[in-house]
Amino acid sequence: MNKPDYEALMLRALELASLSPEYGINPQVGALLVDDNGKIVAEGWHKGAGTAHAEVDALSKVADGRGLTAIVTLEPCNHTGRTGPCSQALIDAGVKRVVFGTKDPGKNEGGGQHTLEAAGVEVIADVLQDQAKALIRPWLISKTENRPYVVIKWASSLDGRTAAADGTSKWITSAQSRADVHLRRSKSQAIIAGTNTVEIDNAELTARQEDGSSYGSQPLRVVVGNRQLSKDLRVFNDLAETIQLKTHDPKQVLSQLFERGIRQVFVEGGATLESSFIEAGLADEFLIYLAPKLLGGPRTAIADIGVKHISESIDLEVFEMKQLGADLMLRAQKKES
Amino acid sequence: MNKPDYEALMLRALELASLSPEYGINPQVGALLVDDNGKIVAEGWHKGAGTAHAEVDALSKVADGRGLTAIVTLEPCNHTGRTGPCSQALIDAGVKRVVFGTKDPGKNEGGGQHTLEAAGVEVIADVLQDQAKALIRPWLISKTENRPYVVIKWASSLDGRTAAADGTSKWITSAQSRADVHLRRSKSQAIIAGTNTVEIDNAELTARQEDGSSYGSQPLRVVVGNRQLSKDLRVFNDLAETIQLKTHDPKQVLSQLFERGIRQVFVEGGATLESSFIEAGLADEFLIYLAPKLLGGPRTAIADIGVKHISESIDLEVFEMKQLGADLMLRAQKKES
Repeated sequence: MNKPDYEALMLRALELASLSPEYGINPQVGALLVDDNGKIVAEGWHKGAGTAHAEVDALSKVADGRGLTAIVTLEPCNHTGRTGPCSQALIDAGVKRVVFGTKDPGKNEGGGQHTLEAAGVEVIADVLQDQAKALIRPWLISKTENRPYVVIKWASSLDGRTAAADGTSKWITSAQSRADVHLRRSKSQAIIAGTNTVEIDNAELTARQEDGSSYGSQPLRVVVGNRQLSKDLRVFNDLAETIQLKTHDPKQVLSQLFERGIRQVFVEGGATLESSFIEAGLADEFLIYLAPKLLGGPRTAIADIGVKHISESIDLEVFEMKQLGADLMLRAQKKES
Repeated sequence: MNKPDYEALMLRALELASLSPEYGINPQVGALLVDDNGKIVAEGWHKGAGTAHAEVDALSKVADGRGLTAIVTLEPCNHTGRTGPCSQALIDAGVKRVVFGTKDPGKNEGGGQHTLEAAGVEVIADVLQDQAKALIRPWLISKTENRPYVVIKWASSLDGRTAAADGTSKWITSAQSRADVHLRRSKSQAIIAGTNTVEIDNAELTARQEDGSSYGSQPLRVVVGNRQLSKDLRVFNDLAETIQLKTHDPKQVLSQLFERGIRQVFVEGGATLESSFIEAGLADEFLIYLAPKLLGGPRTAIADIGVKHISESIDLEVFEMKQLGADLMLRAQKKES
């Protein structure tokens, strides 16, 4: 009998985890139950706040958990919330071994490893830890900083412009890029835009499918700024909920949204608003669409972000890059120093 | 006996062609002589103005050319220049078949196919034509437009800035990107920069190897603008020749350089100068280094290029993209409409 390939199994658990809602109160988690030969006997993942955690979801699919090994992307919780602690559920089911991806750094939930080991369950920690950690980064940031995870999005020409001199921008990017934006919007909890953007561009800020119909799930539309806006603007139509926050302080915007239960936001423009989030250090992820075009002129995607000297540049780490039609899509985060 | 794989052989001929000087009075050309089985019996390429053309170079390596097939990236010339017409040389050598990549559109040199066929030589035209044409694009443009081929180069942050607000820029890009720039400079005939760039940045504009020493071949340094400059600036040191052209008109710059025999230039900055070439439609190639950084602020790589409305955007076709350290290097040309 060979030792099961825990890394290969963890990859599958990570795949399952990515089926969980991308953003929310709970992290994305996936779990497997395997026998001594590494054969998968049950799979589970977390389907959203109030539903079973991944481990419990997998356990619900077997008649008898005794002697099985659980592969979980995140350390099983110790926490008695709406669904009971997972570490106890694994112990009660008779699981003999738990292999997990990364520790849960939460104050209440952490410590599942200790509980499991005290009950005689073997624990193997930190299998594919980097990937497991990267997966829950949005949730971790939101949880540790008590604010929504912030995605700064822009679409620009190669020279960094979002529009021609007269403000026209339809379309800078490819149909594939636009479809990608709408899909990502549909998975987002809120979209933030400045008063200028919703007024001048009359942006609707909804998530639409390629046939023009709305996605089933629509993010909250958040207009930021003090200006009094006409209710005839498309952003106020009834395709999604809209609120206006009369402030220009990114911190205030985020704390008000956090109080409403929002754990992730998409900042969509304009340049001044995006720059204020970047300058305030409140930019967790950059989603950039670069179209093979040149525009020149005054309408840059990013304005002043407080970088006076080259040594203060905001250095990024690109973690995803792909071609969308003729465009290049980049996802990046601040480089850890 | 199978028919030789002319496409595979043409690929090899294109490889040889790329050993020719990249820019100059003559195009890059490669040639093979193969027997009836497609076995290569000689290889040749053009080594620069005044030396043998590729076909003649290959013929010089065989005692007897009778019955062989010549594979040439460019239609053999009819032209009696410093080295005599290649079509006649092929006929005289007794070559029975000529396979070429793309027609020579030149007024004097074109027509080799006709001469060959009239002499009873079989001709197979347009094998890997797109690649063969792309290879000689710089030469073709220079020849048909009577001006140097123009490469617009810039290195910027992802948001399109070449420096921080205070003008500091050392270093935006990776060591690998900088080495790539210097290698490309060493193959260039001239580097153009504005008076501002050579004064404020005190740019030397030479081609240096990674150990700091100069490449054997240095491009002409061309300073563009009316301002009187101090002879103490590094651009006037004795590591390469330098001229100043007191004009801001890209057309005049190029015609004066063409008269001096320059067939290709690298435009290195600043933003105003580069933009004037782009706006004048005198930008044949874009060489862009994008560093994973954000800078914001006023120092954009490209200024106003005359695009008022999005429909006037300059659409590019990226023909090469590679990673250089953490940077992305893109080479592009205007999309053919």
